[in-house]
Amino acid sequence: MYHGRMWLKQNMKDKLREHERLDDLILDGMKIIQRDDQFCFSLDTILLAHFGSVPHGPALDLGTGTAAIPLILTARGARQITGVELNSVMADIARRNVVLNRKEDHITILEEDYCHIKTWAASGAYDAVYVNPPYREKSRGAYSHVDGIRRARHEETATLDEVLKAAAYALKFHGRFRMVHITERLTDILEAMRMHGIEPKCIQMIHGRPDKKAKLFLVEGIRGGNTGMEILPPCIVHNEDGSYSQTVLQLYGKI
Amino acid sequence: MYHGRMWLKQNMKDKLREHERLDDLILDGMKIIQRDDQFCFSLDTILLAHFGSVPHGPALDLGTGTAAIPLILTARGARQITGVELNSVMADIARRNVVLNRKEDHITILEEDYCHIKTWAASGAYDAVYVNPPYREKSRGAYSHVDGIRRARHEETATLDEVLKAAAYALKFHGRFRMVHITERLTDILEAMRMHGIEPKCIQMIHGRPDKKAKLFLVEGIRGGNTGMEILPPCIVHNEDGSYSQTVLQLYGKI
Repeated sequence: MYHGRMWLKQNMKDKLREHERLDDLILDGMKIIQRDDQFCFSLDTILLAHFGSVPHGPALDLGTGTAAIPLILTARGARQITGVELNSVMADIARRNVVLNRKEDHITILEEDYCHIKTWAASGAYDAVYVNPPYREKSRGAYSHVDGIRRARHEETATLDEVLKAAAYALKFHGRFRMVHITERLTDILEAMRMHGIEPKCIQMIHGRPDKKAKLFLVEGIRGGNTGMEILPPCIVHNEDGSYSQTVLQLYGKI
Repeated sequence: MYHGRMWLKQNMKDKLREHERLDDLILDGMKIIQRDDQFCFSLDTILLAHFGSVPHGPALDLGTGTAAIPLILTARGARQITGVELNSVMADIARRNVVLNRKEDHITILEEDYCHIKTWAASGAYDAVYVNPPYREKSRGAYSHVDGIRRARHEETATLDEVLKAAAYALKFHGRFRMVHITERLTDILEAMRMHGIEPKCIQMIHGRPDKKAKLFLVEGIRGGNTGMEILPPCIVHNEDGSYSQTVLQLYGKI
């Protein structure tokens, strides 16, 4: 096993291009190529991929980046995931990550714009839609000068409204919508979900420490669902002494 | 001190009417009359009265019941609070509670319907509005056969929309709206607040234990405020071993 991994790492390293690096995806010994000049997945992506039940039918990841969410979902048992990525550099890495982890039978990567979803997907085709969208409105927050990072952070290529429009189109009746976003925009998000016929059903707040404000949250909505919200126990990232919490250590496979 | 309190309790007990009892309001040695056949204040009321900064100018408590919120606010330093109560039995107890705790200079009790607030209050007259409203829609949840309890729990006398309409009328520009409600209706509440020009700014979830869902939450909105939500550290009522948390013990004056 050790030799196998070493071989994989050495073998892969020869194939890495400029700006690329090979990271652990933690679960199932999976590896993932990322670029230091593009958006890299972080804890919010991992939390989203672990949020809610495992989708049995087809799932869609809007703005999949390097395919971190589809890869984690396969480790949880999902068997049919489509990742959509507009940025061709990222879509290329996503495809290579799928091959690298031998998930070609379960993950499809499409280089498409989800604002034009009607041109490449059938309506109501998906049981679940995941999205880790740009958090900031175009005019707000600190701007990155690196194109790919700025697009992943700010609503340059898709607004919240466009994300929800795409999700509502893709989801079957009673399909699940799952998103991670900043708490700052909570009201906008719940309003927009409802406006697009995706009823917000479940929220989990993510607190850096038990005594700190939550900056991020996970939300699940059901297309055509009834009203009625559940607030899960808070997700605490660090214990009071600064060490990682049990929840996070579990996700990182450390316990 | 001990003798004083004993005297007060004995003296008051002679004045209690049928169904009435004398409870500790905990703070500042205050006492409060409640009725066993009416809605009695509980932890959610206490948490609401401690939520956010102390109002410096006039504050209004919509549906004040036995005046628990105005009394706690005076203990926190507020000096000008109006409590409004529709139920005449409760309004009478509220008035007697104000006298009992010698707060006549700071608390006014009005026996009025806040659905007709324009008949008894000036627009924009208040710095802060508090409300611990009926939680359930008229058609939902278990019904109590006791009139006063049913009205305090279900939206018989005022709907969420009427609560917010009254609050928006009463609040000055940038005045604070504070409410405790059930998480089940979170989306309805945030939407309705925004619709009435009260922007939701701050939420605190209330969890029975750290590993349990939140059933209740506190929300603060600002009339005419900008968008942007803060999620405070969760309020945990009981520790994992079932004992009261530090937060709650502090409110009850036990530490």
